[in-house]
Amino acid sequence: MITIETFVRILDLGGTFVFAISGALAAVNRRLDIFGILVLSFVAGNFGGIARDLLIGAVPPAALTDGRYLLVSVLAGLITYFLYSGVDRLRTPVLLFDAAGLAFFAVAGAQKAIGFGLSPVMSALLGMLTGIGGGMTRDILLTEIPQVLRSDLYAVAALAGASIVVIGDVLGVSYGVSALTGGALCFGLRYMAIRHGWHLPSAHLSAQGRAETDSSNDKKPH
Amino acid sequence: MITIETFVRILDLGGTFVFAISGALAAVNRRLDIFGILVLSFVAGNFGGIARDLLIGAVPPAALTDGRYLLVSVLAGLITYFLYSGVDRLRTPVLLFDAAGLAFFAVAGAQKAIGFGLSPVMSALLGMLTGIGGGMTRDILLTEIPQVLRSDLYAVAALAGASIVVIGDVLGVSYGVSALTGGALCFGLRYMAIRHGWHLPSAHLSAQGRAETDSSNDKKPH
Amino acid sequence: MITIETFVRILDLGGTFVFAISGALAAVNRRLDIFGILVLSFVAGNFGGIARDLLIGAVPPAALTDGRYLLVSVLAGLITYFLYSGVDRLRTPVLLFDAAGLAFFAVAGAQKAIGFGLSPVMSALLGMLTGIGGGMTRDILLTEIPQVLRSDLYAVAALAGASIVVIGDVLGVSYGVSALTGGALCFGLRYMAIRHGWHLPSAHLSAQGRAETDSSNDKKPH
Repeated sequence: MITIETFVRILDLGGTFVFAISGALAAVNRRLDIFGILVLSFVAGNFGGIARDLLIGAVPPAALTDGRYLLVSVLAGLITYFLYSGVDRLRTPVLLFDAAGLAFFAVAGAQKAIGFGLSPVMSALLGMLTGIGGGMTRDILLTEIPQVLRSDLYAVAALAGASIVVIGDVLGVSYGVSALTGGALCFGLRYMAIRHGWHLPSAHLSAQGRAETDSSNDKKPH
Repeated sequence: MITIETFVRILDLGGTFVFAISGALAAVNRRLDIFGILVLSFVAGNFGGIARDLLIGAVPPAALTDGRYLLVSVLAGLITYFLYSGVDRLRTPVLLFDAAGLAFFAVAGAQKAIGFGLSPVMSALLGMLTGIGGGMTRDILLTEIPQVLRSDLYAVAALAGASIVVIGDVLGVSYGVSALTGGALCFGLRYMAIRHGWHLPSAHLSAQGRAETDSSNDKKPH
Repeated sequence: MITIETFVRILDLGGTFVFAISGALAAVNRRLDIFGILVLSFVAGNFGGIARDLLIGAVPPAALTDGRYLLVSVLAGLITYFLYSGVDRLRTPVLLFDAAGLAFFAVAGAQKAIGFGLSPVMSALLGMLTGIGGGMTRDILLTEIPQVLRSDLYAVAALAGASIVVIGDVLGVSYGVSALTGGALCFGLRYMAIRHGWHLPSAHLSAQGRAETDSSNDKKPH
């Protein structure tokens, strides 16, 4: 029992750290000051879990009651701030860490939703939300369309990992096994997307339709 | 009793479907992949109700506990994805469906807020939020200023419809009657706005003030 | 007892009013219609408190159950709408009012979080969120990067004021004293930032790094 909770907590804190670095890097790139960098670190690292906790009624969210989430986020922000050029050179490692964070969050988020009595399908989706929510909020704060909505199997990998946990729960598989399997699947899909450019199709617009769409976009107020 | 609940549920699911189509269309126009399209479908179809449920303390929100909302949203997203050119050609019908969805949501949202003990004024506003919240979130995810903030009596129509339900509740009118009246008023206002360009005034800026504003906007960081 | 509650309520309503004016001014500058102006007034004036209340589990939020928040917000929006040129000429007074609103909110927000049993560190952060949340949401709705993330000790001033309240609570100082001290500190820091351009450092990018960042930003999808 305690082992599983500790395991979940470690996954959560590890995911928080790598996601917080992604938030801090984005903030540095957009010239935010040190405070803005720390806010983006916290948001990217914790907002997926906070959104999940608000939706399942687990208030105050764990990110607010357990000081370690804040500590880990601030640490990631400060490291990025002081070692920016170093962290920035590590883009590929950061992508891999980010894939690991996604796997951690998707698995832990699905498990928490199951524990709060959500249905299997919704638990899988909340696991996905836990994985992608922080990055989405980071992008919205920087007024960019969330990358997760357009790229590289990101959310699908999270959904696949979370689904394994949910299916394992339905079938009565031990959480340790399903968490490892789901996490590995999520990480593996992200890895293939990064290395080999796997991606999802977007809607087929004819050249005609595309031109129309472009011009209608141009007319839109901004 | 059961009849009213069933009625409310049908209104809600119908509104979810047409709003989800509006989200999917916007996502296709911005070249999101199939996952992004489904997310935008779900967000546009459900986020008004989710925001309302979070605010009145009805967690987990109905959109997460009743799988039909998810089903209807995914269906709308897939239909739009596979039949894009067809759906796109239906712009005017979609606008009318959207007006119907707005009417459904405003009426059902106000009724739910009343049931949770909110005051009449706040219930009317929460009905309006239920109607406009999904579209606002859709636009924010696509980094556009929410259309509802600038156009065509959209929110005012929702507020008018929701207000009728609230007034009916205060006066002891049966819900069926006030819901139909409120829904018809909301739909009618939207119809007039679409057909005849009814709109609200914006602030009167002198030519002088307008020029100043423009240049100060230019200087703003983006 | 009642005196403190009344005091807190007055602080809250005063802060709501000045923040609502900031939201209305931003909405007028972006050509929103009267409804959009009122929405931005309400959001800027109340969303910090609403976010705090959602996070600590105080639902429905005070801004929805106490009609005076709505009244004050609508009033601020209407005043701005009808007296735009007058209000706009008062930019410096508005900045000072805004600093006062920030101080009110930070102090009151921290106190409310303490009352809901949050830890001292989190109470201080929630005080800060109460102060900056409305302005952040206002900017997101207008698709701008929240100014608070890049400017002038804004959030730091809120955090400092909220921290004084929290430290006072830990040390057993009476709330009246710590609230006044914290509020004065917050207001003072903002005043110095406005008058003398005090600000936080941003990350040190070498000319090389800056060029790389710019070009990588250019390639990003928007």
